[in-house]
Amino acid sequence: MNQSGNQCSRQGDKQTQWIREVHKETVCLGFKVEKLLFSGQSPFQKIEIIKTAGHGKMLLNDGIVMLSEKDEFIYHEMIAHVPLFVHPAPRRVLIIGGGDGGTAREVLKHETVERVVMVEIDQMVVDACREHIPSVSGALEDPRLELVFGDGVEYVKNSDETFDVALIDSTDPIGPATPLFDSVFYKNTADRLAEDGIMITQSESPFYDTEIQLSMFKNQRPHFKKLHIYLFSTLTYPGGLWSFGFASKKQCPARDLDEKRVHASRIKTRYYNAQIHRAAFALPEFTRENLAGIVDPVPAG
Amino acid sequence: MNQSGNQCSRQGDKQTQWIREVHKETVCLGFKVEKLLFSGQSPFQKIEIIKTAGHGKMLLNDGIVMLSEKDEFIYHEMIAHVPLFVHPAPRRVLIIGGGDGGTAREVLKHETVERVVMVEIDQMVVDACREHIPSVSGALEDPRLELVFGDGVEYVKNSDETFDVALIDSTDPIGPATPLFDSVFYKNTADRLAEDGIMITQSESPFYDTEIQLSMFKNQRPHFKKLHIYLFSTLTYPGGLWSFGFASKKQCPARDLDEKRVHASRIKTRYYNAQIHRAAFALPEFTRENLAGIVDPVPAG
Repeated sequence: MNQSGNQCSRQGDKQTQWIREVHKETVCLGFKVEKLLFSGQSPFQKIEIIKTAGHGKMLLNDGIVMLSEKDEFIYHEMIAHVPLFVHPAPRRVLIIGGGDGGTAREVLKHETVERVVMVEIDQMVVDACREHIPSVSGALEDPRLELVFGDGVEYVKNSDETFDVALIDSTDPIGPATPLFDSVFYKNTADRLAEDGIMITQSESPFYDTEIQLSMFKNQRPHFKKLHIYLFSTLTYPGGLWSFGFASKKQCPARDLDEKRVHASRIKTRYYNAQIHRAAFALPEFTRENLAGIVDPVPAG
Repeated sequence: MNQSGNQCSRQGDKQTQWIREVHKETVCLGFKVEKLLFSGQSPFQKIEIIKTAGHGKMLLNDGIVMLSEKDEFIYHEMIAHVPLFVHPAPRRVLIIGGGDGGTAREVLKHETVERVVMVEIDQMVVDACREHIPSVSGALEDPRLELVFGDGVEYVKNSDETFDVALIDSTDPIGPATPLFDSVFYKNTADRLAEDGIMITQSESPFYDTEIQLSMFKNQRPHFKKLHIYLFSTLTYPGGLWSFGFASKKQCPARDLDEKRVHASRIKTRYYNAQIHRAAFALPEFTRENLAGIVDPVPAG
């Protein structure tokens, strides 16, 4: 234990700049910075893009890490490929949030997808990522994608379009994303989905955020037939282990995908594969207990 | 990004004490401290036990977090129950390292286990954990356990005892644990195992430590029939995702355990269960690629 200081740095290296995110006031994750590339204040939040020493470029909203180039593929592959390989024929995909473009990039790898509507509240996120993180934002130029700058809550209330899959690629339930965790938003999203529609929601840390999970899944329950949760790893969110909610309007074999279809798609991934898909639905005992009666068990396999 | 300082603390809270561990000089993990409970310099390393604000008591060797009370169950359940539920009848277990007692605690939950030999090089770790972290060290008093204070490398070279399972519960390959990653140690450990013996090795981060993994698995390969790697989550190691090597002297269905045996054991766990066991062997694409030809694929299931 370093008694004398509290820097995320070694002795003799006190000038080094780090970004750090304190979570629950008890745990902190820090990344060494090489250079600040962008800083701006939008109507919704402070947006920064930095070049880190070990994790590529990084996007932060209000000082909270949204993604790093080193590990963003995991989050984006897992939010997109799990529902798109489970749904029998996904053609129309709605993305709420996801301004960096990573979720759209993975969705658009699916040749079955004909149309993607992405509703991002904060244009500055998109503009900054287009300029500074093209490896993530590049797919936003795909002609199958319609980019709407607006409030996702209003969009699902007012649109009359039908989608096969909705991906709620939201930040934490603080600031502009708070209404994306409410029952009325989930109801309106369910109404936008076809009979066999699937909604995926960013559902926080199984270790640290049980209360948020309980609240959001209770808010989803009235509007969906089945609710599951699946897990993946990140380098940039506190605790490493993270989760997505999987809500389907009818009974749906969330875990038991057609492995041949995954191979036949020839989609190139760096984290996702058929084994990882199935494994992601296996829950630790403490998660099972925390969410017992709230999410539906997935049959063993 | 906090331009003005580099503390893991909020503004106005600059006196708060944090422990932090910098990894690869680019990423840092910090925990808020309430109290230093123990600090001592053994012949091998500096040993500290602290009470943290959010993660219970924590053991550090040379400033590196070994365990926290909040998440130690994951590491200890996964090092012990995976091989003990795969081995057909584990009676004799060797633990190298593991001075905190957590691995022994999980091993001794198995009624089939008749004898455990635990070889820990640093008595101060055991003494400090016995005094300050009884929730982890308590099982060290079990009469089935023989505690040997000595060098694990020498022990496997000189012993003529035979074991069913060997658990290499080592720190990183720096300091006293370095020889535990060498070929000669793996050969001597294999020699201590019965025909159907299994060796588990702490095998570092799939994100950050590929070079160590390549080296250690190459060193194991000549002495074992099958080598696998399996994954689990931690809160206290950089990146969250961590791994164990699974080495067996003969062909062994590492993944396909008898689920009924797990239930019949009535062993109480907080992370491990039969689904988690199977899921742990699913590897992300980047890990498959990093370790292609080095570890053996596990059949899909």
